Amino acid sequence: MKKTLALLCALAMMLVCVPGMAEETATAPKYVFMFIGDGMGNPQVAATQYYVGSIANPDSEVPVPGQLSFTQFPYLGMMTTYDASSFCPDSASTATSMASGEKTLSGVINYDVTLTTPFKLITEYAKKAGKKVGVISSVSVDHATPAAYYAKQPSRNDYYDIALQAVTGLTVDYLAGGGFKKQADELIAIAAEQGWMVPTTNEEIRALNTTDSRVLAISPVLQDSASINYEIDRVRKVAEGEDILSLAEFVEAGIKVLDNENGFFMMCEGGKVDWSGHANDAATSIHETIALSDAVQVAVDFAAEHPGECLIIVTADHETGGMTIGFATTGYDTHFGYLTNQTISFTDFDAVIANLRENGASFAEAMAEVEKYYGLTTAANQPLSLTDTDLTALKTAYAMSMGIGLMSNEEAALLYGGYEPFSMAVSHIINNKAGLSYTSYAHTGLQIPVYAMGAGAENFSGLYDNTDIFNRTMEVMGLTK
Amino acid sequence: MKKTLALLCALAMMLVCVPGMAEETATAPKYVFMFIGDGMGNPQVAATQYYVGSIANPDSEVPVPGQLSFTQFPYLGMMTTYDASSFCPDSASTATSMASGEKTLSGVINYDVTLTTPFKLITEYAKKAGKKVGVISSVSVDHATPAAYYAKQPSRNDYYDIALQAVTGLTVDYLAGGGFKKQADELIAIAAEQGWMVPTTNEEIRALNTTDSRVLAISPVLQDSASINYEIDRVRKVAEGEDILSLAEFVEAGIKVLDNENGFFMMCEGGKVDWSGHANDAATSIHETIALSDAVQVAVDFAAEHPGECLIIVTADHETGGMTIGFATTGYDTHFGYLTNQTISFTDFDAVIANLRENGASFAEAMAEVEKYYGLTTAANQPLSLTDTDLTALKTAYAMSMGIGLMSNEEAALLYGGYEPFSMAVSHIINNKAGLSYTSYAHTGLQIPVYAMGAGAENFSGLYDNTDIFNRTMEVMGLTK
Repeated sequence: MKKTLALLCALAMMLVCVPGMAEETATAPKYVFMFIGDGMGNPQVAATQYYVGSIANPDSEVPVPGQLSFTQFPYLGMMTTYDASSFCPDSASTATSMASGEKTLSGVINYDVTLTTPFKLITEYAKKAGKKVGVISSVSVDHATPAAYYAKQPSRNDYYDIALQAVTGLTVDYLAGGGFKKQADELIAIAAEQGWMVPTTNEEIRALNTTDSRVLAISPVLQDSASINYEIDRVRKVAEGEDILSLAEFVEAGIKVLDNENGFFMMCEGGKVDWSGHANDAATSIHETIALSDAVQVAVDFAAEHPGECLIIVTADHETGGMTIGFATTGYDTHFGYLTNQTISFTDFDAVIANLRENGASFAEAMAEVEKYYGLTTAANQPLSLTDTDLTALKTAYAMSMGIGLMSNEEAALLYGGYEPFSMAVSHIINNKAGLSYTSYAHTGLQIPVYAMGAGAENFSGLYDNTDIFNRTMEVMGLTK
Repeated sequence: MKKTLALLCALAMMLVCVPGMAEETATAPKYVFMFIGDGMGNPQVAATQYYVGSIANPDSEVPVPGQLSFTQFPYLGMMTTYDASSFCPDSASTATSMASGEKTLSGVINYDVTLTTPFKLITEYAKKAGKKVGVISSVSVDHATPAAYYAKQPSRNDYYDIALQAVTGLTVDYLAGGGFKKQADELIAIAAEQGWMVPTTNEEIRALNTTDSRVLAISPVLQDSASINYEIDRVRKVAEGEDILSLAEFVEAGIKVLDNENGFFMMCEGGKVDWSGHANDAATSIHETIALSDAVQVAVDFAAEHPGECLIIVTADHETGGMTIGFATTGYDTHFGYLTNQTISFTDFDAVIANLRENGASFAEAMAEVEKYYGLTTAANQPLSLTDTDLTALKTAYAMSMGIGLMSNEEAALLYGGYEPFSMAVSHIINNKAGLSYTSYAHTGLQIPVYAMGAGAENFSGLYDNTDIFNRTMEVMGLTK
């Protein structure tokens, strides 16, 4: 019976179907969401799943992984991310590949390897097809990943020129999240002259709606390099009474601004997964991944209200830090719950260290801050008790942070990667106690998962190259080069 | 036109198709190949792709990843691997999950967590359905992964009892690759009594054919713990004139032995990807992955001769070592070509060190061996020149290997993980110069890619749990519990 049905089915398909064309691909999605967790490889996602599952089931005797908004999407692919410079590429070249379908050198935004020919972007094709375009990032909106969705610039470091392309160009209708790295006031003034609406308070951003067009929505509260706060810091500060917009709120506002009869293409970057990966700060990385998951959830909810009209892709540009779940001295054990003791990012802790330095604080005073923000303790027989080896590492790092340590450049590069030594030592110790570790302060060459749901999502299965994100999205959207 | 066709197609499918049943799943595969690269996560596969591409294109200015036999399979999935003990599971519990569809504790072969109820295996269902069963491993055939495809034993360490189940049980028709860890002669004698054919030379194994049934084909040349040689050592020894069977040859022989009108289920493990991962030996790991890829190629070639009749799955049980492509001091650079200088596994190098120890050899004599087998040199300005930091690490490790070093247990665990210190130091240095690194000497909690081709392969897309390998394979094969 099964065989007969199958035969009939095969026959029917041969009679009426074009090969490779399934029911779902036939309808182009009206709304396309492209979420990029910068530096968010499988280690970051898996660690976050295990963290979420562990803290939700503290008494479970067996490991329970949690789910993020996108880890149960029906389609999964994996992509290679190497660029024309390296197997360990950067965000400029990888975002270029996803936005334009072309490979280029590390550091280059939408130009070819000779730096002479610009590429045409999926956002430009989408715009021409009548869609509105949104670009959101938790880091500054002129940073490499968001830049690749509107700008063409031989160097990612030309922040002002890149930002100028956003505010004077016609591609982007909603630019949101972090601010501008260089000459921000001037750029905001130019944007206003060009007719952009520029809300300046959380309330104004939350009140955005479909009658508002061309909106530049920079978070009124910024952290380092014009980024929005690390989620781990945002949560702490909100608990202390501050009001700070989350990445998810910028997606919510964006949907309201962009929605129209022709639909939209929205790119939203979780940019500080990468930054916390560079700095080997696992708890902060996990909170950044949760923040991105929350932002994706907004799109998932929107898709539920618009059945068959949305395509949601969640991926990364590359992995950062060589994070793994497993450390030499913890063997097969993990203790994700330990990370709940950490309530600060390395960035905010760097400020704590600067304060210690200014006051000529003792090591004991520094350790009080470590216990306050990380739970690591000199007291014996606690889960986060420091060993003699830990204390030696902390003392060495504290001397380096206070400017009184001596170390070869090679050793310092290995131990601290150019970051604040004491922050790095603290992060490495709590990571390792939790059973997590990093091998690098840079990007790695791992292949990257692609999670997809909605109209055309089935085209994102399999193993392919990051340039195929452009190719396949274009095809699904019915756009041609 | 496209829309009309799609509508017609959808209509036709609704009329004649059972939901979820596509053309390809309708025909159960006659031949099922299950390849398990023990410890072969995405880092191991990606590193091997980049190594292969780099050495094939030494003059290329841009990175060129190579392809393995399975990296272009049309379907890709990813699975969680945690067991009832840990997010970083072992091979016993994970192979149990893939063979039986059930979760259990680390260390347990096909028993539940109370160690009282045995599970029924996919090989038993396949056998009952008339198929022959093959179990091949590059490590001893009583090791956890192969064991899970024929045995039920509360502890993976009961090697003799496990092996006895293979030779006295009725499940396995072809047991091949490595030997037995305990009482091998006795077990071989029992097998012969039970009617197994036991070829004892490479020639006899190569001459196996379809008229031979129930074959125990142990490699006449064994390395550590009754395993076949590491591929990196096999290549070196074959170049020196030895004849050593490859894992691929055991698959070739197996296909000949197992082929019959009802088809077969063959599990083939590349067991030493894991061992080289534990020992943080990247070049050896890459060669093991190549050996598994070559073994898969035999199945791919067989599938080409049997269109529509084969399902080939390639996956891993877990990742081992926390390998990543990227190291702190190499940043964004990788130098995969450096690894071609390494021509020995850590295991064979341990024997070199034992010899040095026996002869009371000097550090300079040891360094001559390092240069011979790894290309690392004390000469200046070479690609593999050793830095002062490298030399300090090597001297410290050499003292430890010679039994004259002093170090805290914690430091030794971190630096050497219980392995021969000098081997570990050498491996870490060449890995890091190539731009590779490890974080652990144990298994990690990464999710694991699943590559699939052939009849029913489309069922292995998406993100799922390792127990679904059993569930989906059973379904594709038309078997019911």
